[in-house]
Amino acid sequence: MPQNPVPAQANRASTATALSGPLLHPASVAIVGASDDPRKTTGRPQRFLAAAGFGGTAWFVNPSRETVQGEKAYPSLSALPGVPDHVYVMTGAEAAIDTVAEASRLGVPVVTVLSSGFAEEGAEGQAREDRLRAAAAQGATRVVGPSSLGVVNPRSGVMLTGNAAFGEPDTPAGGIFVASQSGSVIGALVSRARGRGIGFAGLVSTGGEADLSLGEICSATLDDPDITSYALFLESLRHSADLAEFAAAAHRAGKPVAVYKLGRSDEARALTVSHTGALAGEDSEAEAFFRACGFARVSTFEGLCEAPALLERVPADGPSRPRVGVVTTTGGGAAIMVDQLALRDLSVRGPSHELVDRMTEAGAPVPHSLIADLGLAGAKHDVVSAALREMQDSGEFDLVLFVIGSSARLNPELAVQALAERGGHAVPVVGFALPEAPEAAELLASSGVPAFRTPESCADAVAAAFGRRSALIDPKGLLGSFEGATQLLDEQTSAELLDVVGVPTLPSVALKVTSMDEEISLPFDYPVVVKALSDQLAHKTDAGGVVLDVASADGLRAAVRAVVSDVADKTGITVDRVLVQPMADKGVGEVLVGYRRSQDVGPLVVLSTGGVQAELYDDSAVRLAPVDHATAAEMIEEVTGLAVLKGHRGAPAGDTDALTDTIVALSRLAVERPSVIEAEANPVRVRTDGVVALDALVRCVKEADRA
Amino acid sequence: MPQNPVPAQANRASTATALSGPLLHPASVAIVGASDDPRKTTGRPQRFLAAAGFGGTAWFVNPSRETVQGEKAYPSLSALPGVPDHVYVMTGAEAAIDTVAEASRLGVPVVTVLSSGFAEEGAEGQAREDRLRAAAAQGATRVVGPSSLGVVNPRSGVMLTGNAAFGEPDTPAGGIFVASQSGSVIGALVSRARGRGIGFAGLVSTGGEADLSLGEICSATLDDPDITSYALFLESLRHSADLAEFAAAAHRAGKPVAVYKLGRSDEARALTVSHTGALAGEDSEAEAFFRACGFARVSTFEGLCEAPALLERVPADGPSRPRVGVVTTTGGGAAIMVDQLALRDLSVRGPSHELVDRMTEAGAPVPHSLIADLGLAGAKHDVVSAALREMQDSGEFDLVLFVIGSSARLNPELAVQALAERGGHAVPVVGFALPEAPEAAELLASSGVPAFRTPESCADAVAAAFGRRSALIDPKGLLGSFEGATQLLDEQTSAELLDVVGVPTLPSVALKVTSMDEEISLPFDYPVVVKALSDQLAHKTDAGGVVLDVASADGLRAAVRAVVSDVADKTGITVDRVLVQPMADKGVGEVLVGYRRSQDVGPLVVLSTGGVQAELYDDSAVRLAPVDHATAAEMIEEVTGLAVLKGHRGAPAGDTDALTDTIVALSRLAVERPSVIEAEANPVRVRTDGVVALDALVRCVKEADRA
Repeated sequence: MPQNPVPAQANRASTATALSGPLLHPASVAIVGASDDPRKTTGRPQRFLAAAGFGGTAWFVNPSRETVQGEKAYPSLSALPGVPDHVYVMTGAEAAIDTVAEASRLGVPVVTVLSSGFAEEGAEGQAREDRLRAAAAQGATRVVGPSSLGVVNPRSGVMLTGNAAFGEPDTPAGGIFVASQSGSVIGALVSRARGRGIGFAGLVSTGGEADLSLGEICSATLDDPDITSYALFLESLRHSADLAEFAAAAHRAGKPVAVYKLGRSDEARALTVSHTGALAGEDSEAEAFFRACGFARVSTFEGLCEAPALLERVPADGPSRPRVGVVTTTGGGAAIMVDQLALRDLSVRGPSHELVDRMTEAGAPVPHSLIADLGLAGAKHDVVSAALREMQDSGEFDLVLFVIGSSARLNPELAVQALAERGGHAVPVVGFALPEAPEAAELLASSGVPAFRTPESCADAVAAAFGRRSALIDPKGLLGSFEGATQLLDEQTSAELLDVVGVPTLPSVALKVTSMDEEISLPFDYPVVVKALSDQLAHKTDAGGVVLDVASADGLRAAVRAVVSDVADKTGITVDRVLVQPMADKGVGEVLVGYRRSQDVGPLVVLSTGGVQAELYDDSAVRLAPVDHATAAEMIEEVTGLAVLKGHRGAPAGDTDALTDTIVALSRLAVERPSVIEAEANPVRVRTDGVVALDALVRCVKEADRA
Repeated sequence: MPQNPVPAQANRASTATALSGPLLHPASVAIVGASDDPRKTTGRPQRFLAAAGFGGTAWFVNPSRETVQGEKAYPSLSALPGVPDHVYVMTGAEAAIDTVAEASRLGVPVVTVLSSGFAEEGAEGQAREDRLRAAAAQGATRVVGPSSLGVVNPRSGVMLTGNAAFGEPDTPAGGIFVASQSGSVIGALVSRARGRGIGFAGLVSTGGEADLSLGEICSATLDDPDITSYALFLESLRHSADLAEFAAAAHRAGKPVAVYKLGRSDEARALTVSHTGALAGEDSEAEAFFRACGFARVSTFEGLCEAPALLERVPADGPSRPRVGVVTTTGGGAAIMVDQLALRDLSVRGPSHELVDRMTEAGAPVPHSLIADLGLAGAKHDVVSAALREMQDSGEFDLVLFVIGSSARLNPELAVQALAERGGHAVPVVGFALPEAPEAAELLASSGVPAFRTPESCADAVAAAFGRRSALIDPKGLLGSFEGATQLLDEQTSAELLDVVGVPTLPSVALKVTSMDEEISLPFDYPVVVKALSDQLAHKTDAGGVVLDVASADGLRAAVRAVVSDVADKTGITVDRVLVQPMADKGVGEVLVGYRRSQDVGPLVVLSTGGVQAELYDDSAVRLAPVDHATAAEMIEEVTGLAVLKGHRGAPAGDTDALTDTIVALSRLAVERPSVIEAEANPVRVRTDGVVALDALVRCVKEADRA
């Protein structure tokens, strides 16, 4: 795939700041390709702008008409009485390129292009896209799209969109900025937020990202005081460095980011490829990347517009095992919620005995149980208020979740009103109404209390919010993925490289096959293992290149003969050297530690159990390099199969501190040696005291190609 | 826990049929404890009955008033001018018992009791509950409750409920019968169904199930022609035999059942215990039970009212890997749907090349892709109609899912109308609208096309519908869980028992420890394994009771000495016999096959991998006994770790046919030997040719207690 010509970093940053106004707060806009028929897609923006009460100047360009929908039609951008801040192009692809070129000459800051017929249409389309970019680059014009369903700002009535969904009046305004790689998702999110107190400070369909990437668009809006949080809908991780840069800046600005990404399954991934022309990353890459970005990934669609309110109240780096308290007037509803939370590894805590006593004294009696169940009769303002206050004040909870029964729908002035008044406390409160209760949702949202419509999205958002970490990402780490020729290193060289960064390896001696008639003296005792030493053999064992438990010099000679002959038979490769190592003791368990450079997100450090188990159970932990000690320890916790290292069923425990060091060390190699494309210590044997890598495999840039 | 006195089977069945009318279609009702204040819980039924236009006779009983809310108040049931079909009791617990006794004398068929203060309140409450049951049993009166939030039939205006949620007019009528162990859930379900074309033929809060269990209540309604499907909300599997009986009858009646059950997580399970006083089963028990019942278990709350429409169109025993086709006007929305389906192991299929050609000819051009994407411009009645028709007629799909874009909300007369017209085809169609689109949902539902509000509940329901199997349950199999004393059998006796039913075991010889000075002659070759033989030792290995790889008679003597001394040291148990077996070859893999009798659902057959892996990854398959060959094969497929038996990475494959036989054989033991409480072959070594159990453990009823 041809690479976009990436503008220099400094240039871009300044452009981004300059974009903020024209993108979301243009004083003047022009619609190119405007239709006289208000029912046509190309006739809609004019109608939408009028209906939304856009206060700036709107011009309409249509060379074949005098007027469109009663307004003057201009023949071209150049013919307009002024230079618009933002142009929306709804023509065919070739005319769109011409318009961008014209806009560029005139000094238009932003052009959003609806037109399709670019990179998604093969080589010819790709050539058009290159010309589109070149046209913009003649001046300082930046392009959103092509195939962008538009840019909307409900606060200022900016409706640069042909999306029929915006034909409804009163697009809800609020603090969320939505950027989506799928255009149709935007209208759906707006409809699902509508009437529930959730609103938007901007919505952008990023389209083909020929010029401005989704990350750049978001970065450009960070200084907009109307925007309090972000909701991203991603099909792929394309332009990940821009996303990483936005992540770091959003973190500095204290604006949280929720993300929904397609491709959790192989099937959707395949679809993403055909749908956008982008190479979608593996889902674990996305997980690792979002984690490093400090994004909160949600897994329910509605969660994408519901979660931001919660993220604004739960700071990053909160407790990973939050103490969630549940208050309710509906035992059954609370039980559903507890179940959904537990499925996401979130444990609910019951109030302490002392707290139950205080709640009872305060007029909110609850049983000694996992949930503070006020009962049907508890759906009174003062009871709920007292219950929530005591729970929040107790210091026993990081979050208090109120599961509201029928009163949420029928009498929101009772329990819901009490909940709405508790949003200012340092301990956040969250509401889930078991019945359909839009009024309650609106009341809560307008009071700053996050509200959820399904128990699934509520639990999902709570998990995502508390799982969110500070953005630790260095966008430079993502750049420079190497695409040239690579070479394997043999095991000895690989092991030496790992040893240098601090991965413990076994002592070893390389012997020439031709030296077998000489006396053999080893710097360690028998039994030993004999392995073919070759930079051609990635999988020695499969090729018959390994003999274990060799007890003597004669045995060693026989083993070498067997290795040479078996490898030749199975692979045709001539082995001229072998590596001899002492046999390692059995240890507590075996792991794989490695990294590979991903095309999208840079070096990914992987920890898993050894053997087929990791593959069968998809049981591994993945992080972007570099990994610090705390993160490495978190990775060990995350791999289910590594529970054996804790001393399962009375067996001795493994040295997880040493394993932590090894993960950190290997991750440093990823950062410090850009020429090493891939490195793996597998297996690493974990002992009660220390760890040792029994085998090593490194792939690096071919020497001839190195810088 | 004291057992309910269970009426004889025949008696019950006839009662059930007789209940159908008075429960949901009473000609006359009486509210006992009716209040003059319409805002009080006890004042609501009168108001609700009037608002819902109940056409029968309603009497109100309140001994301390002349009138209630303008109607005559009677002092007692006996004072009424007639015998009501259905009485709703809203008094305190003691008065409720008296009312039931009076109703029983009068010959009232059904009394529903709202009153609380029974089994949930310890020994005293339990005694009250026994008296309540006894009062009913004096005559032919059957009781719903206590703690029942009521019985509602929106079709006939029956509103025997104090649930405020029914204060809203026009409870949606339709074909779903809801039975819930949680009262508050019912109102929430109604509110979530409202305005979306989903309606109910009855809703019952089953309360404490002191007399009529949830299963009995459902069975009683099966002959009601208004009811087309069932939605159950369960907190526990109490009275499982009644549920099983209902399941079998529902299957015969062709009425599908959706179920949502709490307790997927340990935490919610703990909560269920404290909440209902019932011992909730493990979640895998519930899975196995529902599968045997032919119920479709949903995992989203809204799915419980959305799924029944789909279940009515997808017969049980459909393909377990259905071919799902996706048509859309929103690529992004379809990708979300594909992702959600794939997460539930449902694979989407693209239309064949020929079908794409036919669709194009028919005026519905789509790309060659996993989804039939008509594009935004495809949101036209005739285009969608042609696309759906060609997909349904193609024979390439078992289900066609239409993901509808903004037109669902804005112009339901276009794409949604076209979808609504396709519900009559043998291949079911289903709609998911990406935007919030209640009108579309209503149009679809009223046309018999299942519609879903979230991609999660849609995928959930599709998975549940195609996973549904014919009810194969024999309620008698669930009865007679044994609670007396049990004893372990020693390994030799256990193995003999398994061998008799057809589980292959190793040859073995039992030797007395005192015979070690004599000459030892074995019927098999060395090497052998030596194991302590004792009915006191459930975990021989942990106790030092096993020595592997014994190569000679002298070795055997040494091994016996070691076993005797180690077991004595570690457990204090005196070993006087050992079991000697040949060492088994390594084989392809190891599994555990066993069964245990569950208190709630009878014998459960379990298959998992051997070792700690099964435990760490919660990787097992569980079914009710008996298991047939097809089910056993399904179980092998289901255990992730058993992929190694297929010949992982070029390794030889294991004899899964022999393993299937072994699972079937062990499951027969569960059915044929009621005295065997628990049996386990662990490990069973799977070879390329055959399987063999290396160890066996059986627990059975103490001989003195056997029948």
